[in-house]
Amino acid sequence: MFLEPFWKQNAGSSSIMVAGWHRMGYEFEDGSLISKQLENVIHKLHETVGNANTSNKYILFGSGSTQLLNAAVYALSHTTYSSSSSTKVVASAPYYPVYKSQTELLDSKKYKFSGHTSSWRNKTRNDKFIEFVTCPNNPDGRLNKAVLHGKFTRHIYDLAYYWPHYTPIPAPMDEDLMLFTLSKLTGHAGSRFGWAIVKDKAVYDKMVEYVDLNTYGVPRETQLRALKLLNVVVRGDKKEMFRFAHTVMRSRWEKLTEILSTSKRFSMEQLPSQHCAFSKQVRPPSPGNH
Amino acid sequence: MFLEPFWKQNAGSSSIMVAGWHRMGYEFEDGSLISKQLENVIHKLHETVGNANTSNKYILFGSGSTQLLNAAVYALSHTTYSSSSSTKVVASAPYYPVYKSQTELLDSKKYKFSGHTSSWRNKTRNDKFIEFVTCPNNPDGRLNKAVLHGKFTRHIYDLAYYWPHYTPIPAPMDEDLMLFTLSKLTGHAGSRFGWAIVKDKAVYDKMVEYVDLNTYGVPRETQLRALKLLNVVVRGDKKEMFRFAHTVMRSRWEKLTEILSTSKRFSMEQLPSQHCAFSKQVRPPSPGNH
Repeated sequence: MFLEPFWKQNAGSSSIMVAGWHRMGYEFEDGSLISKQLENVIHKLHETVGNANTSNKYILFGSGSTQLLNAAVYALSHTTYSSSSSTKVVASAPYYPVYKSQTELLDSKKYKFSGHTSSWRNKTRNDKFIEFVTCPNNPDGRLNKAVLHGKFTRHIYDLAYYWPHYTPIPAPMDEDLMLFTLSKLTGHAGSRFGWAIVKDKAVYDKMVEYVDLNTYGVPRETQLRALKLLNVVVRGDKKEMFRFAHTVMRSRWEKLTEILSTSKRFSMEQLPSQHCAFSKQVRPPSPGNH
Repeated sequence: MFLEPFWKQNAGSSSIMVAGWHRMGYEFEDGSLISKQLENVIHKLHETVGNANTSNKYILFGSGSTQLLNAAVYALSHTTYSSSSSTKVVASAPYYPVYKSQTELLDSKKYKFSGHTSSWRNKTRNDKFIEFVTCPNNPDGRLNKAVLHGKFTRHIYDLAYYWPHYTPIPAPMDEDLMLFTLSKLTGHAGSRFGWAIVKDKAVYDKMVEYVDLNTYGVPRETQLRALKLLNVVVRGDKKEMFRFAHTVMRSRWEKLTEILSTSKRFSMEQLPSQHCAFSKQVRPPSPGNH
C-alpha cells in the first residue's frame, strides 16, 4: 500500500474505464490471449530501468508471478532431457515458502521439492534440477546468484524485487527464465499480474500451454489496467514513480535502522552499498515487504 | 460475442471506472480474497433464475471455471477416503477435452484421467472416482445426469450452459459441487471469471487452498466488473438479458434447423422440449457454442 499515495496523485492518468461490451471474447484481434501493446510497454520498461535484457526473448503473462512459478517448473521439467525422469526442485534458504508448497501441491510424478541448494552442491551429476534464484532475496535482501551448475540444472530467476526502489541495480539481468510481478513494481497486488521473460522457445511454449490449460490466460481488463499503469511508469523522465517509491522505502529503512541501533538484543545485518545504474548513485538496499 | 449488442444497449449501467489507487492490496477489508457483494449477487442470481440451490453452500471464485475444474479434482481426490490412494477421473463422451488435458497436465500421483464413464459402470467398487457431469452437455445439448454411483464416487457438475438462453430449466440443481462461468452467462469470456458452489466445508477449503497457491485469487478489477454486470442481469424484472439472449439463440437454432431440414446428408438430433420454470414455457433447447 506504500504506493497508494503516488497513484492518488496520478489518478487522472492511471484510471481505466471498461465498457460492458469491451473485449468480451477470449482472444485479441490477432488470435492471441495477450495484449501486444502491453508486451511492448514491458520491453520498454526493462530497457528504461535497465534491470533485465529482454531482447530476443519471449514474454508471457500470468496471474501474478504466482501462476508463473509453477508454469516455469512444469516447462523446465518437460524440456530438460537426462536419464532421470523426475526433476528435483530446490532453493537457497531462507526462501519464499510458495516455491515448496506450490511444487508439492499436485504431487506430480515429474518433479519433487528437494530442499535446499546447499544439500546438493557438487552432487548434481546426471540428475535434473530446477533452482529458484531470488534476487534480491525475500526476506534477507541479498542479490543471490545461482548455486547449482550441473549439466541438467535449470534456473528460475524470481526478480520480483529487482527494481530501483528496493535495491541498487548494478546491471541488467540476462538469464534464460526471469519472472516479474506488477505487485512489487507498482503496488497492484490485487490485480494478479505477472510476466515471464523466456529465452528458449520450447520452454516458452510449455509455459503457454500451462497457463492456457490452467486459466486460459489473464483477464483482459487486468491487462488493460496494467497497460495504463505501466504507461505512467515509463512516461516523462521515466523516474517519477521510482523516485517516490525509493524515498518512502529509504525513509522507512532509515527509521528501522535508527530504532535497532539503540537495541542491545537485535542488530541489523549490514548489506553492502552498490552502484545503481538506474539512479547513477551508490546506494544501500532498501528492501520492502519483509 | 452474441451478447455484445445487449451490453452496447446497456453501456451506461455496465461500465466500470477503476482508479489507479483502487483496491491495490491482496485482500478485501475483511481479509478475504473475494468480494462479499459479488458473492451476494451470485446467490441472488441463482435464486432469481432458479437453476441452482445455493442455500447453505459455500461460494468460491476462480479464473474462469477453467481453474475451478482442476481445483475441484484436487479437492475431491484429497477429501475422499478409501483404500486406494489414486482417484480415477472420468467423463461421459462426448466431453469437453479440457477435462482430460487438465487432469493429465501435471501428472499427479493422486489422480489419473481414466476415460469414459461407460467403461466403469457397475465396476466402481472400492475405487475412488471423480465423474464430470456436464449439463447441458457441450456439444450435444443433453441434460446429462451422473452415471457412476459407487460409494467412493464424487461428481463435478459443470453447469456452464445451465441458463435459460441455452436450455429449459426444469428445476434448480442441488448438487454437492457445481461450477458456473461468466463467459457463458453474460458473454464475458475474456474476463476469466467463474464460481463454484460447494456443499462440503472440507472440499471448499481444499479448493480455496488450490486457488490461493495457484494464482492467489481472482483480480480485484475482474471481481468489480463481474459485480457490475451481474447487477444488470438481476435488476428490474430480472429477465431482460435472458430474453435478449434467448431470442438470438432461438433464431440461430431455427435457421440451422431449417437449413439442415433440406439436407439428405445431414440431419438434426431431436432433443425434447421441457417445461422451463424460469420462462414458464415449454421450450426446446437452443444450445450455444457448438
